[in-house]
Amino acid sequence: MADSATPSTPLLTDELDIVIPTIRNLDFLEMWRPFFQPYHLIIVQDGDPSKTIKVPEGFDYELYNRNDINRILGPKASCISFKDSACRCFGYMVSKKKYIYTIDDDCFVAKDPSGKEINALQQHVKNLLCPSTPFFFNTLYDPYRDGADFVRGYPFSLREGAPTAISHGLWLNIPDYDAPTQLVKPLERNKRYVDTVLTIPKGTLFPMCGMNLGFNRELIGPAMYFGLMGDGQPIGRYDDMWAGWCAKVICDHLGWGIKTGLPYIWHSKASNPFVNLKKEYNGIYWQEELIPFFQSATLSKECTTVQKCYIELSKQVKAKLGKVDPYFVKLADAMVTWIEAWDELNPSGNAASEIPNGTAKGT
Amino acid sequence: MADSATPSTPLLTDELDIVIPTIRNLDFLEMWRPFFQPYHLIIVQDGDPSKTIKVPEGFDYELYNRNDINRILGPKASCISFKDSACRCFGYMVSKKKYIYTIDDDCFVAKDPSGKEINALQQHVKNLLCPSTPFFFNTLYDPYRDGADFVRGYPFSLREGAPTAISHGLWLNIPDYDAPTQLVKPLERNKRYVDTVLTIPKGTLFPMCGMNLGFNRELIGPAMYFGLMGDGQPIGRYDDMWAGWCAKVICDHLGWGIKTGLPYIWHSKASNPFVNLKKEYNGIYWQEELIPFFQSATLSKECTTVQKCYIELSKQVKAKLGKVDPYFVKLADAMVTWIEAWDELNPSGNAASEIPNGTAKGT
Repeated sequence: MADSATPSTPLLTDELDIVIPTIRNLDFLEMWRPFFQPYHLIIVQDGDPSKTIKVPEGFDYELYNRNDINRILGPKASCISFKDSACRCFGYMVSKKKYIYTIDDDCFVAKDPSGKEINALQQHVKNLLCPSTPFFFNTLYDPYRDGADFVRGYPFSLREGAPTAISHGLWLNIPDYDAPTQLVKPLERNKRYVDTVLTIPKGTLFPMCGMNLGFNRELIGPAMYFGLMGDGQPIGRYDDMWAGWCAKVICDHLGWGIKTGLPYIWHSKASNPFVNLKKEYNGIYWQEELIPFFQSATLSKECTTVQKCYIELSKQVKAKLGKVDPYFVKLADAMVTWIEAWDELNPSGNAASEIPNGTAKGT
Repeated sequence: MADSATPSTPLLTDELDIVIPTIRNLDFLEMWRPFFQPYHLIIVQDGDPSKTIKVPEGFDYELYNRNDINRILGPKASCISFKDSACRCFGYMVSKKKYIYTIDDDCFVAKDPSGKEINALQQHVKNLLCPSTPFFFNTLYDPYRDGADFVRGYPFSLREGAPTAISHGLWLNIPDYDAPTQLVKPLERNKRYVDTVLTIPKGTLFPMCGMNLGFNRELIGPAMYFGLMGDGQPIGRYDDMWAGWCAKVICDHLGWGIKTGLPYIWHSKASNPFVNLKKEYNGIYWQEELIPFFQSATLSKECTTVQKCYIELSKQVKAKLGKVDPYFVKLADAMVTWIEAWDELNPSGNAASEIPNGTAKGT
């Protein structure tokens, strides 16, 4: 059964912010109320600032619309996407908490196979507090979980694990498919509850979905930039992917882990595949260049903070992906602007600029 | 639910041999009869050749004891372990089938969460017939499984997958722990049925357990050498680990995949942790050197067959691990002898010496 039920997992209500892009669905917060109400919410409105988002009574929240973003960041607001849920990363920047959980407004509470409602947030906290094992694969999955351990043949020197930077949760019901797969398999539903959490190994890329995602902001926050999507941009639906590929390369370099698996949320509604196809078609083509780029990206020894890693990566994006399309030159510049804005709102001396004991092990 | 129930999976009774080291438990074959009787069994007796193994009526089998191994291999029999279940790899060598399934005699039929008996062999066949995805991680696990697919952000050029060389199954009840973990957690049982199959990513090592293991002998057979263990050797219980590390490096080089997860068997009995500690203590120490060695091992472009890869690896073992202990010089020589014996029993022209369309993709 899901470990989310374990009562001993701390809730970290004072150390975690929930970041949500525009809430279009009035039921969303009501459904999550038992789980979300103890936390502070940061809502980032993606579209028309004159429209009002009604937040039900009893929630502790702050809400930012485009006018707020422009006012707070000034010219640097150019790095934050408009009319796209990618704007949520502004919330990561203004948070002052150690952990972030972000979720989409069409994601509801799922049930485990016993019928019990899953406290997704608690499982993310558990994943983030518990080490990762990126340097060697454990065949019984997360060795730190109750009832599991490292199996025969797992080197003892690696059993301490690595700090966990990101917890990537999954989705029951509507799977996170691209537009072509949506079009080909309109009726497919994810009904399989896979009762596991595992570490994505070092050197392996994965598609990070922003629907149900937790991360340690103090560790990896500055790398969680969701890029330039939506209004005026030639691409959409690659915001979380972009953040995931950048963050994975940086976590690999700094010796941190990324977990995927539990918790599940219930993804209620498939987005329109025709609209998605229009947003995605450049990305589907470009990602054939992006993946080899990120697979071969290496960072120099001088990159000892996430910010330095990210700036170094932005230079490589400009030099190598700029040839694929001029969009990537613009994106590389926005990556630099993002880091400048991050550092402005998070003055030096905070934990984000220091590296904990997670320097790379193995090869 | 387990896909082992899918009736459409072929049984491949004419293309698969079941290889079993000494059967000490009379119930073993009776319990597996409904699943194993259609197959040919190769039993390799690990100890005293004068002892007789009684195989129940109705099974089609061949049995080899030490005298047979000495007679068939002559001086090359020195590469086959004595008084250790590592001798099972002799069975891989004498088989003429495309696929091998190997299982220990303390492994029984497990049940899935619905209470249905799991046909482990059928799930292995399914895993081996279906491609792997070693170049990029799919967050919904095996994308070829019913009800699953590649998620958004998975490059389309990689969706064809790679040939699957090995299917590594897991164990309910007694987990495959090393002696120290057995001693510390004598009561731990694996009760978690994780309903998934996934590909171990390229570049990542894992601890391959020989208890419940299927492989494509035509692809990777010559790399499945279980080393020198048991009588006269300073190490035991690293036979399957050694094979797994060698095979993983070679699969990565040749562009093939290794799957782990389903099917489960019921591992009935923990072996004696004190005896295990005596067998393992050198291995526990040595593996701290072995893992960095295998993590950094690279094979040249000239290594276009498994045999060439294996000979190249044996040279690196001798040069680099020979410094750790003289045992590895002896092991490196035995690796060469193994390949010579393999080629003698499997004359050229067979599929093992040709590479199918699985040349390396990605980086």
